Amino acid sequence: MISEKMLALGKKSSAIREIFEYGKKRKAEIGEENVFDFSLGNPSVCPPDVVNETIKKLLDESDPVLLHGYTSAPGDMETRRAVAAYLAKTYGTEDTAENIYMTVGAAASLTVTLGALVCDGDEVIVLAPYFPEYRVFAENAGAKLVEVPCREEDFQIDVEKLALAVNEHTKAVIVNSPNNPTGVVFSEESIMSLARVLSEKEKEFSHPIYIISDEPYRELVYGGVKAPYIPNYYNNTVSCYSFSKSLSLPGERIGYICVSKRCEEWRELFFAVCGAGRALGFVCAPSLMQKVIPYCIGKTSDTSIYDTNRKLLYRELTLYGYECVNPDGAFYMFVKAFDKDASVFCEVAKKHELLLVPSDSFGVEGYVRISYCVTTEQVERALPAFRALAEEYGKI
Amino acid sequence: MISEKMLALGKKSSAIREIFEYGKKRKAEIGEENVFDFSLGNPSVCPPDVVNETIKKLLDESDPVLLHGYTSAPGDMETRRAVAAYLAKTYGTEDTAENIYMTVGAAASLTVTLGALVCDGDEVIVLAPYFPEYRVFAENAGAKLVEVPCREEDFQIDVEKLALAVNEHTKAVIVNSPNNPTGVVFSEESIMSLARVLSEKEKEFSHPIYIISDEPYRELVYGGVKAPYIPNYYNNTVSCYSFSKSLSLPGERIGYICVSKRCEEWRELFFAVCGAGRALGFVCAPSLMQKVIPYCIGKTSDTSIYDTNRKLLYRELTLYGYECVNPDGAFYMFVKAFDKDASVFCEVAKKHELLLVPSDSFGVEGYVRISYCVTTEQVERALPAFRALAEEYGKI
Repeated sequence: MISEKMLALGKKSSAIREIFEYGKKRKAEIGEENVFDFSLGNPSVCPPDVVNETIKKLLDESDPVLLHGYTSAPGDMETRRAVAAYLAKTYGTEDTAENIYMTVGAAASLTVTLGALVCDGDEVIVLAPYFPEYRVFAENAGAKLVEVPCREEDFQIDVEKLALAVNEHTKAVIVNSPNNPTGVVFSEESIMSLARVLSEKEKEFSHPIYIISDEPYRELVYGGVKAPYIPNYYNNTVSCYSFSKSLSLPGERIGYICVSKRCEEWRELFFAVCGAGRALGFVCAPSLMQKVIPYCIGKTSDTSIYDTNRKLLYRELTLYGYECVNPDGAFYMFVKAFDKDASVFCEVAKKHELLLVPSDSFGVEGYVRISYCVTTEQVERALPAFRALAEEYGKI
Repeated sequence: MISEKMLALGKKSSAIREIFEYGKKRKAEIGEENVFDFSLGNPSVCPPDVVNETIKKLLDESDPVLLHGYTSAPGDMETRRAVAAYLAKTYGTEDTAENIYMTVGAAASLTVTLGALVCDGDEVIVLAPYFPEYRVFAENAGAKLVEVPCREEDFQIDVEKLALAVNEHTKAVIVNSPNNPTGVVFSEESIMSLARVLSEKEKEFSHPIYIISDEPYRELVYGGVKAPYIPNYYNNTVSCYSFSKSLSLPGERIGYICVSKRCEEWRELFFAVCGAGRALGFVCAPSLMQKVIPYCIGKTSDTSIYDTNRKLLYRELTLYGYECVNPDGAFYMFVKAFDKDASVFCEVAKKHELLLVPSDSFGVEGYVRISYCVTTEQVERALPAFRALAEEYGKI
C-alpha cells in the first residue's frame, strides 16, 4: 500500500554504501589505520579557506533576514550573474544570469534537467561504465535507460556503438567527463565525434537530442590535460554542475544547471527546468551557500594531493601487474580485476583490508573502482596490501 | 520535444509571485514605504541569535571536511537524535533517530512523503482553502488531487464532507494546521473527528489512509492556543516539518519528515521515504544547517511581532466592516472580499497600494489572504488604506 518502487530503492542500499558500512565496522575492530578504504568518492581535502571566511563575513555583514531568506526559485541574481560571468570568461560562452538555475547539488541538477526534458516513451543513453544513480534518476523521470559501452582499451566514447543506439525515442545522452568511475577525461576527438553523430541523428529524426553534461569533476584534471567544455562542441547541451568536489563541499548541496544559450529554444527549456524544480520540491538552493559562491567561483581545494595519490597508485599498481587506464581526472582509477567476477575479487581484496568497489555497480563487469580521494599516507600504507593481493593471484 | 507539463509549470508563475513582482515595481515607482505589500509569507523577524552564533562556533571548532561533508542520506545521526528527543519530550511520542529523515525544507518533506506513499490510481485529499503547491506536488507524484472544502463559518474541517470524499483510492489527507491561508488552528475537536472518520474508513476499505501533517507553522500560535499534535490523535501520520518559519530560515532549506512509529509498518514506510528522497535527487540535507539544528531546536524567532500585527489588524479591520475568522496561528488572515470576484477586489485594493492575494489561488472564491509577517509599522501605515478601501465599498 506504499510505493513498491520507492520501497525497493530505499531498501537496496547501493553496493558502494554497503562497502562503506563494512569499512566502518572493520575499522572499529582492527583500528582505522589498518583498513584501506577506497570505496567512497568523498573529498578528503579541506575546502579553500575563502569558503569559511566568506560565510563568516556574510554572517557579520548581512541582514540575517535577507541572508537566510528565500532567493527567487532559480537562485539569487548576483550568484547567477557570477556563475554566468565565470563561464563566459573561462569558456567563451554567451551565458548570462538568465540561463543559470542554482540547484541543491549535482543530483538535483540531474533530476531537474531530466524532469524538464523527458516525455513519455523517451530514452536516455548512458555511456558504460556510469554512475549508478543515473538509472534511478532517468527512470524516475519516466525514461528508459539505454547503456552504450565505452571502448574497453581506453574508456573513450565508442561513437559507432552510440550511433547504433540512437533512435527516434532518444531524448538525451548523459556524458560525464572527467569520469566516475574510470577517471578518464573524454578527449576532444571523442567529443567532436560524439557531436557529429548526434547532429546527424538530430537531422535524421528531426528533433533535438540533448547532451546532459554531468561535470562535477570539471576542475579535477591533472598533468596539463584539459576537459573539453562540451557546450563549445555541441549546441543542445545542458551542463549540470556541483561545487561538491571542486570546493570540497559535498554536504552543502550547492550546484547549478546551465541551459546553454545555443540550445534550440533555450528559453522554453529554461522554463521547463524551473517547472521541474518546482514539481520536485526544490524551492531555492540553500541561500547562505548561494551567497558564498560569488566569492569562491573558480577557486578549488588543493587538488595536488589527489594528483600525488594518482601518480603513486598508477606507478606502483602497474608495477605489481595491475592493468588500468592512466586516469587524467576526477579521483578514481578503474583497475582490471584479477578475477573474472569483480565481486569475488573484492572479497579477496577485503582479506588484505583493501575496500574496493566492483564494477558491476557501474554497468560493466571485471573491474574495480579505486577512489583515491584519501590521504597520501593511506595510499602509502595500502601499497603492500595491493602487492600481496597481486601476489595471491600470481601476478608478481 | 521537452516536457510540456514542466514547461507549463515553469511558465505559469504563481499568482502570489506575480503580485510580489508587481510590488517590487510599484515600490520603485512611488517609494517602498508607500506600498503595503501583504502578499508573501516570508518571515520578517530575524532568526534567533543562536543560529548565527552556532554557525560561527561550528566553523571555528569543526573539521571543515566533516562539517561540509556528506551526512548519511537520512541525515546526520546527532541531528536526527536531537529532533527525535525534542518531539518525544514535547509531545510524548516514541520517536528516535530511526524514524526521522532530514529534508531540504518543507517542499521536499512533502514531495518525498508523497513519492513514498502514492501508487498508481491513488487520490490525495486536501482541505480547501489550501497551499496551491499541494496540487503540483501530489500530481507530480502521480496522485489525483481531491478538494474538500472547510466549514465556511470557521474554516475548521468539515468532517461530513470529508467522509463523503474518501473512497477506496484515498491514500492520504494533507492537513495543514496552523493553516495557510486562513491562519486557523484546527481544534482538538476537529482533529478527533477527522481521526475517527479516517479510522472508520480504513476499516471500511481495509487499507491505511495516512494523514500528511504539513506543520511548518507549528510553533506560530497565539493567545495560549495549542495546535493539537496530530500523531497523538491518529496513528498513520507522517509529519512534514520545516525550520523556515519558526527559525526564520526559509532560504536555508532545512526540515524533516517524522514517520510516526505508530504508523502500520513504519519501518517499511521509512525505507520508502529514503527511496523517494533518492529518486528525487535529495542526497542529504545541507550539512552545516543540519548541524546547527541540535543547538536551536525548540527555539523560535521573536514571534510577538506577528501577534501584535495580528491583534492590530483584526481589531481595526473588523471595525471597518471586514469579516474574518480571528486567526490563532501562522501569520495569515483570510478576509472576505467586498466583491464577489476576489481578483477584482484585489485590483481595487491595489489602487490603495494594498497588495493582497485573491483566494482563488487557494481553491476557494471570495476571500483575500493578508500575510502579516511584516513590520508593525507597515501594518500601522496600511490601516488608512484598508479603511479607504472599505469606504469605497460603502462599508463605513
